[in-house]
Amino acid sequence: MGGCVSSCTRVAVINWIESDQTRERFHQGKTMIKKVLIGIVCGAAVLTVGILIGHFGITKGGSSGPSWVEDVAKDVDQSLIEKFLSEVDNIQIQENLRELTKVPHMATTAGDEQTVQFMLKRWQDAETGLDDAWREEYLVYLSFPDPKNPNKVTVVSPSDTVLHAIREKEKTYNPEEDDPAVVQPYAAYSPAGHPKGKLVYANQGKPSDYQVLNQTVDLRGTIAITRYGGAGRGAKAINAAPYGVIGVLVYTDPLDINDGLMSDINETYPHSWYLPPSGVERGSFNVQFGDMLTPYLAAKEDTYRIPAEDITGIPPIPIQPIGFEDAYILICALDGENAPQDWQGAFNCTYKYGGPGFKPTSAFNGSDVKLDIFNYEEVKNSSNVMGIIRGSVEPDRYVIYGNHRDSWVHGAIDPSSGTSVMLELTRVLGRMVKQGQWRPRRSIIFGSWGAEEFGLIGSAEYTEQYFAKLSERTVAYINVDIAVFANATLSASGMPSVQNIIFTAAKQVDAPGLVSTSVYDNWIKYSNRTSPAHGVIPRIGYLTGAGSDYAAFAHYLGITSMDISYTYDRSKTNARIYPAYHTAYDTFNYASKFIDPGFLSHQAIARTAGNVLIQLADSLVLPLNCSDYAETLEDYLKTAVSLYEEKLESRKISMEPLKRAVANFRSAASHLDNVIRTSDLANETPLKVRAINDQLMLLDRAFLDPLAFPDKYAYRHVIWASSSAGQPTFPGLADAFANADLSGQSSDWNKVHYHLSVASQAIEGAAQTLVDVI
Amino acid sequence: MGGCVSSCTRVAVINWIESDQTRERFHQGKTMIKKVLIGIVCGAAVLTVGILIGHFGITKGGSSGPSWVEDVAKDVDQSLIEKFLSEVDNIQIQENLRELTKVPHMATTAGDEQTVQFMLKRWQDAETGLDDAWREEYLVYLSFPDPKNPNKVTVVSPSDTVLHAIREKEKTYNPEEDDPAVVQPYAAYSPAGHPKGKLVYANQGKPSDYQVLNQTVDLRGTIAITRYGGAGRGAKAINAAPYGVIGVLVYTDPLDINDGLMSDINETYPHSWYLPPSGVERGSFNVQFGDMLTPYLAAKEDTYRIPAEDITGIPPIPIQPIGFEDAYILICALDGENAPQDWQGAFNCTYKYGGPGFKPTSAFNGSDVKLDIFNYEEVKNSSNVMGIIRGSVEPDRYVIYGNHRDSWVHGAIDPSSGTSVMLELTRVLGRMVKQGQWRPRRSIIFGSWGAEEFGLIGSAEYTEQYFAKLSERTVAYINVDIAVFANATLSASGMPSVQNIIFTAAKQVDAPGLVSTSVYDNWIKYSNRTSPAHGVIPRIGYLTGAGSDYAAFAHYLGITSMDISYTYDRSKTNARIYPAYHTAYDTFNYASKFIDPGFLSHQAIARTAGNVLIQLADSLVLPLNCSDYAETLEDYLKTAVSLYEEKLESRKISMEPLKRAVANFRSAASHLDNVIRTSDLANETPLKVRAINDQLMLLDRAFLDPLAFPDKYAYRHVIWASSSAGQPTFPGLADAFANADLSGQSSDWNKVHYHLSVASQAIEGAAQTLVDVI
Repeated sequence: MGGCVSSCTRVAVINWIESDQTRERFHQGKTMIKKVLIGIVCGAAVLTVGILIGHFGITKGGSSGPSWVEDVAKDVDQSLIEKFLSEVDNIQIQENLRELTKVPHMATTAGDEQTVQFMLKRWQDAETGLDDAWREEYLVYLSFPDPKNPNKVTVVSPSDTVLHAIREKEKTYNPEEDDPAVVQPYAAYSPAGHPKGKLVYANQGKPSDYQVLNQTVDLRGTIAITRYGGAGRGAKAINAAPYGVIGVLVYTDPLDINDGLMSDINETYPHSWYLPPSGVERGSFNVQFGDMLTPYLAAKEDTYRIPAEDITGIPPIPIQPIGFEDAYILICALDGENAPQDWQGAFNCTYKYGGPGFKPTSAFNGSDVKLDIFNYEEVKNSSNVMGIIRGSVEPDRYVIYGNHRDSWVHGAIDPSSGTSVMLELTRVLGRMVKQGQWRPRRSIIFGSWGAEEFGLIGSAEYTEQYFAKLSERTVAYINVDIAVFANATLSASGMPSVQNIIFTAAKQVDAPGLVSTSVYDNWIKYSNRTSPAHGVIPRIGYLTGAGSDYAAFAHYLGITSMDISYTYDRSKTNARIYPAYHTAYDTFNYASKFIDPGFLSHQAIARTAGNVLIQLADSLVLPLNCSDYAETLEDYLKTAVSLYEEKLESRKISMEPLKRAVANFRSAASHLDNVIRTSDLANETPLKVRAINDQLMLLDRAFLDPLAFPDKYAYRHVIWASSSAGQPTFPGLADAFANADLSGQSSDWNKVHYHLSVASQAIEGAAQTLVDVI
Repeated sequence: MGGCVSSCTRVAVINWIESDQTRERFHQGKTMIKKVLIGIVCGAAVLTVGILIGHFGITKGGSSGPSWVEDVAKDVDQSLIEKFLSEVDNIQIQENLRELTKVPHMATTAGDEQTVQFMLKRWQDAETGLDDAWREEYLVYLSFPDPKNPNKVTVVSPSDTVLHAIREKEKTYNPEEDDPAVVQPYAAYSPAGHPKGKLVYANQGKPSDYQVLNQTVDLRGTIAITRYGGAGRGAKAINAAPYGVIGVLVYTDPLDINDGLMSDINETYPHSWYLPPSGVERGSFNVQFGDMLTPYLAAKEDTYRIPAEDITGIPPIPIQPIGFEDAYILICALDGENAPQDWQGAFNCTYKYGGPGFKPTSAFNGSDVKLDIFNYEEVKNSSNVMGIIRGSVEPDRYVIYGNHRDSWVHGAIDPSSGTSVMLELTRVLGRMVKQGQWRPRRSIIFGSWGAEEFGLIGSAEYTEQYFAKLSERTVAYINVDIAVFANATLSASGMPSVQNIIFTAAKQVDAPGLVSTSVYDNWIKYSNRTSPAHGVIPRIGYLTGAGSDYAAFAHYLGITSMDISYTYDRSKTNARIYPAYHTAYDTFNYASKFIDPGFLSHQAIARTAGNVLIQLADSLVLPLNCSDYAETLEDYLKTAVSLYEEKLESRKISMEPLKRAVANFRSAASHLDNVIRTSDLANETPLKVRAINDQLMLLDRAFLDPLAFPDKYAYRHVIWASSSAGQPTFPGLADAFANADLSGQSSDWNKVHYHLSVASQAIEGAAQTLVDVI
């Protein structure tokens, strides 16, 4: 380098001197020499200035190397975050919601298609749309009531007189609830059938409830009435059938949803957010998620479909949801022993088991309850609407943000609150992109999933179709389904590694309706815990279930996922969910009057989730914290050791490998954190940052074991799989232990040992992905 | 940029003019103006030169940006390849082999430990070793004969007199064959037992063989003698048991191994490479690979182990291998009908079915054959020896090169020919690294696997333990087990995407013993095909089986794999494998006299495989060709359509999704190839190259389906899974079709449809990973 510069300089100076000499050749010698010397000095100075200019003055494509050197080192632009936050508009969200909830939009109906068109129009908008948007269709197995033969539930006297008929549709208070497209309350995937039998009360329909009930009442040939809660919808019928129960009713007890209030004169909607007596929670009564005819295969036209009779996890006997006004009449007329205290609800009578059947003193004496269920199944065309913003630096890294689009009725809160928020995000981000103000480092994929209400079908089919691509490239999945349950506080669940980025984002957003208080500061007041590493912090939940579209991402793909919403002040209500959930009352009117007047909580969610999204898309180093994962694993281990170690030792099953694995994970996580903290990654080769980001991105993938849970469809994540044991610890181990402890069989203890090895190996494998790459 | 340069220039020029004016202030006006103008012109010229120098002349840390900009763009250095090729030394390989074969080194024996120490010493050598080397231990389930109770096979007269005892150990011709560590011939994983019965001849022990035999002979209580070939070792016993056969013998017919030659006077070893009459092929008689007690779990100390009685895929009845000198005596004494023509071997008698039992005219009239098998199983500590060279630019990308270390006896060819080659590679590469002459772009991992002979155990456990890490980061696996079967021509199998890099490498290596002929040019003469894209090219095979340690990499992890060796001139021998295979004669003496005198074929393999390794490790863009993959998928599709479409159409099963998937794959592959061809990737952001390399690296991963083959342990690759249908097409489809076509049951046709969907979805998914990343 030095050699070239000095020799080039010399040559240039001499040339210039010669040229000067030619022009002034008759001047006297001394002057000439002097001038030459001066010329050399000056020329050298000019040249030096030029070199300095050339070297330092020309930045782009110049002295800092190729033009991409700066691009690849770019980190999150905080001014862009501020701009984003300031542009998120509550009124825009309100108007999105108004548009989305004009008509009921149950999956695959005309109303659903209207929302598809609306999403496409918005995402294809030239000024505020995305880079690209399209629909993806799947042919999925759905279940509907027959509009020509509505499902009926009646009390029938021994002489076949109908003594009471349960209301077929909810009472209407506002015109939109009277829309002919409002689907009759029903239990999707309940078989059709006409069971008739004596009524019994089976509490929440849990296995233990039927077990208790069966000790007193002969359940064969009975109809069981159950209340929502405690067990999954479908489980209430699945648990019943082995006892000979032939039909099930399910209702929402005012105790569980209305804080006890029952009157529609002034206590319930439209006077408050509480559920009117005729309100009925619809729902899907299947246990698995995804299209049930095409397990692990995307439900396309010629895809192999299993015979419908091979479907598992759906009610084997008819089941129908009803309102509590009818449940009240039935339950308070029941004969038999008093049900236990914790089976009692809010009705002003003592809940009894049923004789089976009704009290001799009641008008229904000797009568049966009859279900006439006309549900039918049909393969229908359901659409996801997809939209993308291409990444500038790492287009092959995806941040996915999604929510379902289909509702049961108008679905103002579920799911349109989330969809309104998503549309506001895409409007603000889309405009920045269209105006050339921003392009994320990584690609962003937006998904408006279809047929979620029938079992997370659209998102599950999407993950099945694009399994490889999504596994390889997805940094994180953000789910905002019901954006606002209530307007008290943020609520978030996710893998522990996302805790930090949610906190960062929530600290930058103002809490709705509060002065100088961040969403974070407000949150910590409602829900907190003490972390060994961070002290008192808000508590984030774990995604151990399949409550929304994160399920396929988290459990099947092992993608780091989170679910974000605004929610209740639990000191003010015990409602198991917002009361209009899955009813005809979940309307724009309800949402804007009782859930979030002014839409400030919606705005806070849009800002918080959008902030998380931008930071995941733009950060140089992914803002995923593996040490927080270690903390959770240590919690899990502590629980497991205290619950299981003694009994396992007595069976010569060692927990040492699990302890070692968690310790190795912690040490690898600390090491990686330290590398990130102490490296000047912006000035190193981008492949070094990429390697670290790959370690962070693929961390959750390392916990997958596709064979560990053969009975749990699509659950592959060894840490977050669903569990029935109800212990905050490794799910396979917890379930296997509960089984073995009950049965005492050595084959069941073998399964405990197996799950111990599965968990240990998964955690060791994950730790291995965090240590230095080689 | 432009603005800054021009304004800076102006200021500099004016300063210089002023300085000149001061010095020459008394000169006349015109001259001065002229001089000033000239000065401006010259000054500007000097300045421009300076700027150019500053901008382009200063390279390091200067105008080309950070120092790593050049590093990340570096491609394979051809002079390094030449240096490598020239340094690979045949005599070094010979001496490696001499050292490795000093004593028998069956897995977990003292001899095995000697080879562990030898590998470690070499790989930890300060001058020619690797960056790091260590051992990894697994506790694995092995099977051995009892040295104190050798297995016996006898002909026993009705009066219990032993009329003939089969030779217990092979005849020795050289001292090393007499080593007490030479293990008695046995069938690993054959149960112990003492069956006695009439002898029958069951050809190769295929299902069809027993079926045919059973039509003539009542097989209940018989002992079947079979010859190697046609069916897997264990299968010969597994297929027999359902017919009531109680014991099995297996031998190598001179027809199959010796081109008919039988005499040890001058025809066979030590006079030629042919198998002496007492030679016996040992082997593992299990069907699955990996440690059988710990399926899908690394076999560590406290790992859960299934009960031994739950193991599947091992012989249910005793089986023992014997030499053809004894088989001749038994078979030629058999009674019964003449066996079919294609059951006849090289013995100078007509092979008969057996009465069952022997001819009345033979000395064995009325006699039984008795097996006394004393094999026992034991969990033993087996080691892999691992060594690494860290990558400089992408250390988180691995090229893995491996071979097993354990043999049955001295294992000169199997596996020490490959180990000798590997040690020569590591010597040459290690020295370059130690001397600072080279560091690969990507990391290289060398694996010397343990306990391969018992079922690819070391490599399988390794892939189970490091599943996540290896899946995420491995570019390719290169397997060189038996490096030289014979010295005629190269032979290679692998995923179609490796064809091109093997060709490239083989073109740069001289064929052993030939003048001006490359390994490639020689190869194409022995084995070729016509490719639509490339014309006449050497034929590479597919890795559809589990013949060596590539199995876990290819099938379980979905890592692009290849297996390379030098092999036979098929016009000169029909031997099913080199005749000393798995016998006591596979010694240094045998290898250096009969397989590769001078070790030039070993050298050619070291050069070819090493060249492949370097190019995979150093190429800027991975030399994996996805269009060649498309060609194979098109071949597979063509076969499937011609074999199955008509019958499938009649059952309303459409092959359109499969056709569409293959077409989409082709189009995506062409597109990606085109992007690679037309991009100036060395000058683009390294993240663009990385994205493309990730597409290429992860291509095989996209074909994995962990649930598609529940009955085939660890087979997850939808294109290369093992298949019994014997058709060069999609294995799941082929096997399901064969079943359904035989049974005609609609549930079996459903499985055909299922596998059609599985293959279509896998190929569509793989195609999706090849299209633009978003």
